[in-house]
Amino acid sequence: MNVPTGRGLLPRRSFLGSGLALSAASLGPAVYAAPLAARMPDSMKTLGGADQAYGQPAAHEQAVLRVAHPTAPQTAGFAIWRTPLQQQRGIITPSGLHFSVHHNGLPDIAPQRHELMIHGLVKRPLRFDLERLMRYPMVSRIHFLECAGNSAANALSPTARNETLGDLAGEVSCSEWTGVPLSYLFNEAGLQNSAKWVVAEGADGGSHARSLPLSALLKDGMLALYQNGERLRPSQGYPMRLFMPGWEGNVSVKWLHRLEVTDQPAYTKDESGLYTQILSNGQIERFAFHMDVKSVITHPSGLQTMPEPKGFYEIAGLAWSGHGRIAKVEVSTDGGASWAQAQLHGPVLDRAFTRFTLPWQWDGKKATLMSRATDELGRSQPTRADWKRRYAMQSFHHYNAMQAWRVGSDGRVENVYA
Amino acid sequence: MNVPTGRGLLPRRSFLGSGLALSAASLGPAVYAAPLAARMPDSMKTLGGADQAYGQPAAHEQAVLRVAHPTAPQTAGFAIWRTPLQQQRGIITPSGLHFSVHHNGLPDIAPQRHELMIHGLVKRPLRFDLERLMRYPMVSRIHFLECAGNSAANALSPTARNETLGDLAGEVSCSEWTGVPLSYLFNEAGLQNSAKWVVAEGADGGSHARSLPLSALLKDGMLALYQNGERLRPSQGYPMRLFMPGWEGNVSVKWLHRLEVTDQPAYTKDESGLYTQILSNGQIERFAFHMDVKSVITHPSGLQTMPEPKGFYEIAGLAWSGHGRIAKVEVSTDGGASWAQAQLHGPVLDRAFTRFTLPWQWDGKKATLMSRATDELGRSQPTRADWKRRYAMQSFHHYNAMQAWRVGSDGRVENVYA
Repeated sequence: MNVPTGRGLLPRRSFLGSGLALSAASLGPAVYAAPLAARMPDSMKTLGGADQAYGQPAAHEQAVLRVAHPTAPQTAGFAIWRTPLQQQRGIITPSGLHFSVHHNGLPDIAPQRHELMIHGLVKRPLRFDLERLMRYPMVSRIHFLECAGNSAANALSPTARNETLGDLAGEVSCSEWTGVPLSYLFNEAGLQNSAKWVVAEGADGGSHARSLPLSALLKDGMLALYQNGERLRPSQGYPMRLFMPGWEGNVSVKWLHRLEVTDQPAYTKDESGLYTQILSNGQIERFAFHMDVKSVITHPSGLQTMPEPKGFYEIAGLAWSGHGRIAKVEVSTDGGASWAQAQLHGPVLDRAFTRFTLPWQWDGKKATLMSRATDELGRSQPTRADWKRRYAMQSFHHYNAMQAWRVGSDGRVENVYA
Repeated sequence: MNVPTGRGLLPRRSFLGSGLALSAASLGPAVYAAPLAARMPDSMKTLGGADQAYGQPAAHEQAVLRVAHPTAPQTAGFAIWRTPLQQQRGIITPSGLHFSVHHNGLPDIAPQRHELMIHGLVKRPLRFDLERLMRYPMVSRIHFLECAGNSAANALSPTARNETLGDLAGEVSCSEWTGVPLSYLFNEAGLQNSAKWVVAEGADGGSHARSLPLSALLKDGMLALYQNGERLRPSQGYPMRLFMPGWEGNVSVKWLHRLEVTDQPAYTKDESGLYTQILSNGQIERFAFHMDVKSVITHPSGLQTMPEPKGFYEIAGLAWSGHGRIAKVEVSTDGGASWAQAQLHGPVLDRAFTRFTLPWQWDGKKATLMSRATDELGRSQPTRADWKRRYAMQSFHHYNAMQAWRVGSDGRVENVYA
């Protein structure tokens, strides 16, 4: 199980306490010799600068930004901002880098004027202001959120685009979400016997709206008020959003202002058109909410360059599943011919990013890196060819095929279809 | 066990699926009646604004900031910035609000010029630049960090100061830290037989330095490069810091540039003076690294006002221990005369914030709220009187006595000694 099978892959725990450690032999020695005083940096000889009341990243990290979709017409209200996953280490995405897709710009909502309405097939139609909602019991959960259209370029482009991981698959992020279970609010409103669906509508200029099965909302739905410990950011739906763990991002309606309980879906424009998928047999997949099991290698990944022509590297990445916990991640360096099991780093949480790593002694020759995640239900990732066989040519939602990176003998890393 | 014993405290899971739910009866009904169109907010009638490449909090949340220590001379390089814990929900502190204490200002360090040296009682003195360090295997851990002097006002002030929780106890935060286990670097350098201690020095203007037992660093020490998924912020030690989970914050030396392996402590100015504590019997407690078990109620807390004169409230807070996991948290509404067990929210992690809640039906009369955490080793919080008996009058480090909040019949919440 732990025996490396791929070219140069080392047992997953080999680094710690074994002879295979990353040593001077693999990186080359870096002996410190000069006198200490000569190595005292300038910053030790002067008083430093002032801090600020709300901290920001270092000036030297200004290139670590969300990536705007190159063709999305940002100025007309539709925008896609992607997380630079190739620069993330750990399972928490900083809120400033959380991906965001919005169809009609960011509404500026004064929280003291915002209301949430619950109406339709309820016994007591209710409205809530923020002060009232803040008094309800809240739960906190660490969950990923992924856009239905994440990785569209890999689904649609006939040849693999040579882009960064963030460009290719950065419409997924992971945060700690805190808010009020929707079951509390629905129970207070009282559900009529015919209640089956809920239409959730945002207070944005496009009235983004989705129909969701009531039973799922009662089990898992949250009215999210906080992200990573602080109130939601504007691009995440300030002052409140619906949050459905593991489901495609657009159903977690941002700037939520209305929950209408119904006996059937509303077939809103957002769900009968945009978020419906056509299968290769011509049938339509509608209300396919769950995001499937998926993984990406973040280091090394597209457009990165290996700093040395061979030697030790840690292969690192993130895996997630909309169905539950990640059970295992396998890594290949030979394009899927052989696989070795990666180490999962805890905490391994339900419907959250799980970090995986595997040590790799690169021989400097061409290699094709791939990762394949399996979740606790036994669901695993398809090849790109298998995924394409299932869906019509123009379909691109819920793409979860294995991502492959070609490492050239010149150290360049690029996206390939394998 | 689950039976409420305090005045108005409800069983910890009572809200969900029981007759004790927060209903219209406790909050009063809020029936929605007006026609839908009349309730359409302005934000739905217009195109929203543009997003930005690095997201920021909502303009309406500009008051949620770190709190500067009122008497610390910020301009002279010494500064304390505290986390507004009373506004945090969840276990992750946003990096922009993570507390920071620095003695000599924030050094501005160009990462490509920064070096980490390992020297002293090693076989091969080594130096590492950032590019090299980034190739080592990394681990990720969610841990709190607390300043040794957190809650100093409660320790020292003869009368309880009427301040917010952030003012009183905001020198503690919790993040996901990612970096290289120090054991990898020490093993590569090769330890001499006489190696027992390590002096860690920062590249700041004051050369902040602390001596740490080598065995602890080998077991738990991390060279932290990332916080909450992105590179460290300047006030957290950019480009790298030492991180020792559960230990007083100042030993997690920021802007780390040197680890000198020695056979005894260096008795640096920072440890022989500032971070040494005097007991009430005149003895000195030195190298007492672990932060003890502690908890605070964040909602309701100091300077908050109950929005209604009685009714349902969720008591919520955070607990942590430098020795391990939180095992239980009890809550009292009568100043410690009776206690009920709070619900712990997962994930309950080793040396991390753990969120706790307990439903409370407030009768509108004066109440004194307290929380008491117990960790998996059975360690629990002392009363303030017990804590004061142990230490000399001028001592204030490692204060972990139970925090009490007086809720007045006018709904005002204030800090009290109970």
